[in-house]
Amino acid sequence: MTTPVLGHFARDQWITPSAGSTPLLDAVTGEEVASISDDELDVAAMVDHARSVGHESLRPLTFHQRALILKQLALHLQTVKDQLYPLSYRTGATHSDSWVDIDGGIGVLLSYGSRGRRDMPNDTVYLDGPAEPLSKNGTFLAQHIYTSLPGVAVQINAFNFPVWGMLEKFAPAFLAGVPSIVKPASPSAFLTEATVRAIIDSGILPPGTLQLITGSARGVMDHLDERDLLAFTGSASTAQKLRTDPAVIVRGTRFTAEADSLNSSVLAPDATPDTPEFDLFVRGLVTEMTAKAGQKCTAIRRAFVPNALQQDVIDAVDARIAAKVRVGAPTAEGVTMGALVSTAQRDEVLDRVAELRSGGAELVLGNPDDFAVQGADAGRGAFLPPLLLRADASVAAAHAVEAFGPVSTVIGYDSLEQAAELAARGRGSLVASVITHSPDTARTLVRAMAPMHGRILLLDRDDAKESTGHGSPLPTLIHGGPGRAGGGEEMGGVRGVLHHMQRTAVQGSPDLLTAVGSRYVTGAQLDDQRTDGWQHPFRKSLAELKIGDAVTAGPRTVTLDDIEAFARSTGDEFYAHMDEDAAAANPFFGGRVAHGYLLLSWAAGLFVDPAPGPVLANTGLEDLRFRTPVQPGDEITVQLVAGQITPRETDDYGEVRWHTTITNQRDEIVATYTVLTMVSKTPQPAAEPRVEQ
Amino acid sequence: MTTPVLGHFARDQWITPSAGSTPLLDAVTGEEVASISDDELDVAAMVDHARSVGHESLRPLTFHQRALILKQLALHLQTVKDQLYPLSYRTGATHSDSWVDIDGGIGVLLSYGSRGRRDMPNDTVYLDGPAEPLSKNGTFLAQHIYTSLPGVAVQINAFNFPVWGMLEKFAPAFLAGVPSIVKPASPSAFLTEATVRAIIDSGILPPGTLQLITGSARGVMDHLDERDLLAFTGSASTAQKLRTDPAVIVRGTRFTAEADSLNSSVLAPDATPDTPEFDLFVRGLVTEMTAKAGQKCTAIRRAFVPNALQQDVIDAVDARIAAKVRVGAPTAEGVTMGALVSTAQRDEVLDRVAELRSGGAELVLGNPDDFAVQGADAGRGAFLPPLLLRADASVAAAHAVEAFGPVSTVIGYDSLEQAAELAARGRGSLVASVITHSPDTARTLVRAMAPMHGRILLLDRDDAKESTGHGSPLPTLIHGGPGRAGGGEEMGGVRGVLHHMQRTAVQGSPDLLTAVGSRYVTGAQLDDQRTDGWQHPFRKSLAELKIGDAVTAGPRTVTLDDIEAFARSTGDEFYAHMDEDAAAANPFFGGRVAHGYLLLSWAAGLFVDPAPGPVLANTGLEDLRFRTPVQPGDEITVQLVAGQITPRETDDYGEVRWHTTITNQRDEIVATYTVLTMVSKTPQPAAEPRVEQ
Repeated sequence: MTTPVLGHFARDQWITPSAGSTPLLDAVTGEEVASISDDELDVAAMVDHARSVGHESLRPLTFHQRALILKQLALHLQTVKDQLYPLSYRTGATHSDSWVDIDGGIGVLLSYGSRGRRDMPNDTVYLDGPAEPLSKNGTFLAQHIYTSLPGVAVQINAFNFPVWGMLEKFAPAFLAGVPSIVKPASPSAFLTEATVRAIIDSGILPPGTLQLITGSARGVMDHLDERDLLAFTGSASTAQKLRTDPAVIVRGTRFTAEADSLNSSVLAPDATPDTPEFDLFVRGLVTEMTAKAGQKCTAIRRAFVPNALQQDVIDAVDARIAAKVRVGAPTAEGVTMGALVSTAQRDEVLDRVAELRSGGAELVLGNPDDFAVQGADAGRGAFLPPLLLRADASVAAAHAVEAFGPVSTVIGYDSLEQAAELAARGRGSLVASVITHSPDTARTLVRAMAPMHGRILLLDRDDAKESTGHGSPLPTLIHGGPGRAGGGEEMGGVRGVLHHMQRTAVQGSPDLLTAVGSRYVTGAQLDDQRTDGWQHPFRKSLAELKIGDAVTAGPRTVTLDDIEAFARSTGDEFYAHMDEDAAAANPFFGGRVAHGYLLLSWAAGLFVDPAPGPVLANTGLEDLRFRTPVQPGDEITVQLVAGQITPRETDDYGEVRWHTTITNQRDEIVATYTVLTMVSKTPQPAAEPRVEQ
Repeated sequence: MTTPVLGHFARDQWITPSAGSTPLLDAVTGEEVASISDDELDVAAMVDHARSVGHESLRPLTFHQRALILKQLALHLQTVKDQLYPLSYRTGATHSDSWVDIDGGIGVLLSYGSRGRRDMPNDTVYLDGPAEPLSKNGTFLAQHIYTSLPGVAVQINAFNFPVWGMLEKFAPAFLAGVPSIVKPASPSAFLTEATVRAIIDSGILPPGTLQLITGSARGVMDHLDERDLLAFTGSASTAQKLRTDPAVIVRGTRFTAEADSLNSSVLAPDATPDTPEFDLFVRGLVTEMTAKAGQKCTAIRRAFVPNALQQDVIDAVDARIAAKVRVGAPTAEGVTMGALVSTAQRDEVLDRVAELRSGGAELVLGNPDDFAVQGADAGRGAFLPPLLLRADASVAAAHAVEAFGPVSTVIGYDSLEQAAELAARGRGSLVASVITHSPDTARTLVRAMAPMHGRILLLDRDDAKESTGHGSPLPTLIHGGPGRAGGGEEMGGVRGVLHHMQRTAVQGSPDLLTAVGSRYVTGAQLDDQRTDGWQHPFRKSLAELKIGDAVTAGPRTVTLDDIEAFARSTGDEFYAHMDEDAAAANPFFGGRVAHGYLLLSWAAGLFVDPAPGPVLANTGLEDLRFRTPVQPGDEITVQLVAGQITPRETDDYGEVRWHTTITNQRDEIVATYTVLTMVSKTPQPAAEPRVEQ
């Protein structure tokens, strides 16, 4: 029986090689699933295609529009995902493993589909931080901005998560406006290829934004330069090789790696066997040993436990494995742990276990030569049982040798300080768990361990029920780690998007910076003159409103009677408003002052245009600072400037942020803040006062 | 005459080699100034010293305390800087060049001394962004934190800014809690050594936080690993070499480079010879050619001008050089341009100019074989005149060959698109100037050029007077650039500090996350029960207050009369408060609602404890979101929780941020916000009401 040859998706066309050269085998049965070809592929043209057609597609789209495309893609994949599960089982993954990969991957798309609209502007440039004043008179300032890199993101993925691994790199790149070329690891590439076919068939992605190379990467790096990114997930040794590629060293391609690391879990001293935390530790360890047959870059390789509790832990792990773990074919009834991806991978794991043992670790649970396999031929599939080792803290191999399978080592420690020190012997890890219910222990261990970890999970009775577990990177959190873990960072919400963009400090005058960033910079021209043609900005729809549209209103005098009336009505009789002597003794006031909330309320009274119109609601306020106290007799004036306009793609309205300044009769700034409003895209029907209807 | 042999400052001791092996020469006279030695130096012990003694010094210090040390150091250096200027002149630098280096370096310390206290918490951990909700019931969340890397920052600096170059790397590292080992470039190392002596003599720096290696770096990289950083400023070729060092490739040392690049300045089409911008362009170009004799990594190497204006620009540059530029000894009267750092450097520049000319560029101004030198022997000093070339856009050498001296090339362009494309041919630059008074042009060019630049200066008639110029990196702005510019990033305020820290996503329950980050996480335990021993948190001094101290107050019913009275008194008669029908037609309200400012004001009336006490003032408010409208008849309750406590090092008070939540009678969240207050470190004298005194 001939099996399909995996295609490439290059320059918006499927290329199906005439013949495969390397068979890809079912991890459970050893049967051929598909094959890959090493035919020539014009990778230079693919890179050019991304830089030209891909960028032509993405450049006109705002972050919000790109995010919506990701959401649509996620919704589409949910309708076809059932076709992917059977292929996933053939990689050795159980249903639960497959859910993490397939539904987890779709979840990343959904998360970016949402965060891209919530946390980014509806624009193609992202502003980093506020404008930085650089001069005394305010004519010279700076704004840090992020712009899309003009190149391609080449993404070389690992075999263990053929769907999630692709989508967690693709989504932030796409949102950043950078097209992707995906190169999956061969053993499970048939699942990635099927997913890409589902994506392409949907017609949702714009041209040039996703390409696929199956099999070898075919020297695609030779065509990368300072415009491009190379993102890798896999072994530390391959990461090292890629890191020295001339693309990275000579031509300035941005490189990021996420490599397997010797992650750990720490059972804190308070988590004794009589506590719920002890059980959580054991469950977590067994889960990480068996999920995906331990083939996870985040799996727990080192279990640090108080010296006196080593045997308790081993016994409890033994009991839990006996009760819960059944190795076998993912499709067989009752199976909870599948096969490794290939027999080659299984043999590699056995070699590493032998290395750990010859290095001084002792195998205490599991026998690789004698274990039950359900629903499959143990001789043909890539099966292993969970294998638990034990080692003294001084066994160097335990901190250096990674067996990328269902393998973990229990190591005793004698103090929190030593536990942190042992964790650091992994020379940089993706993740550690700390199982404790003690706030002090959590604080001490996290602060000591964090410098060598990309993620730390604190697990206790309070969060266990809702915890997503040790092994799961989440799209809103960074994924990556220092040193051996690759030194890279992915996802983390907007953080992962910005890795695909260039940060630039732009210096200039308020007018030019406002034009560059589409956000009002203090000192820029505004339109608040009540001359012919001027309209109150509350009368303008989102479509009509321009940055710099403004209203200046006032003055209004604040009297002692006003302050006292406000105190009475609100109940806020703080002494600074009510007691002249006490207020005079305060280091900031020098006498009775108006309530800050009185100033805000009166400012609204001054700037609001009351009749129904496009401004729908004040939804919030940010960055309020009271800068000069207002004393009885002072006059306040307020200026409201349309500062940033963010239409929503899927609503009839959008957000307008108004830069607001209250000044006194001496032109001193009393308060600055940003008022958040929702404004209709069109003049509201309700703009005609209802009483007249 | 024997000159001094430069010392090393290693393990808190000065080591003075017995004899120098390489003389360092005065750039102006060719006389020997000092010598450097290649004696053995125990660099492994220096690295260990930084990791042990240096970290013991820094670990207990908060960001604010470290920042204050930087400030004290700056103030000290200001008192001794006059001793550094004469040494600076011997590097060929004029007084003005030296000011940029010496006072500019002190300015970096001052900036970090200020920003470290303004923009960072008074703690040793920096929180990145808000807590991320990860679960439905709020028992599982995450917080990104930054912690100090446990290693050393090895800083290899360029010859051109021996003081600033050291301090701009040292200050953010120190603030981040990472000790530095500084390795200056040899030609000007005598000035760096003198500066380090001044720093050490002050006794201000704690032990192990600064070490100095003069001469060769002596294989210090062999001792670096995943804990450490290597920061380099200099040539692209040395950057490439360092980037492939096993420390970086194999052991995971963080590497950042800031390399010379082919920066540009663009004369926009609107900046015709009759505009002030044309003059600004010419002045900027001449300044960058002559300041530091053009030996600046940020200098303008390529001047892009509209094709038709090439000769106008050349003529104007010629006139300005004739009027303003006098080459000679920095100490000689009237000299505005000094010597290059060495005759070797001068010869290197001449070789590059020859390469540019043979590549197709034409020398249009300046003759390296015939020019006036004032106050020095032109044969002995490293002098050159300003040299202006002209090239067609197609001359590849103009975009690739950098003459690191007073050399620039005028290149014509025909459209904004082409100007941006030509700038990108530099393959990544530190900085570009765009000279325009047109907002549209600024927007178009910045958005097109930013992806290949670390900084862009917009120069026009509005900001010229206060602009700090093309060539000046500023401590609050990032310095670095993609591709050829090294791909690194330094300074940028807190951004540069964070480059020395590890970002970690910490997941856990509200209680444990609050303990880890010292910031209240929603859902964590709070103390708001009015039982015995409970005290209103406004009665607690900064020393007594704990995170989680809280007050819950209310309910208070809001009536239609209240809303109308508030509208009348404030003047805010927005229809949503006043007109039932119109409010009902609004998509958010469904009827008349209370003013948001009424809710804030009433909430304060509920939570404020009015008598004089440690709470001194409400200084502001952040992150306010109105989430559920309040309708007549609703009852509001407010909860105020001490969320973050930031004592000031130099004041008797500090900032307390209160997490505030208003709920209604259905326990729906009406509004959430953060109230900012100043709170006294001690119970106020004014706590005893003044009326009783």
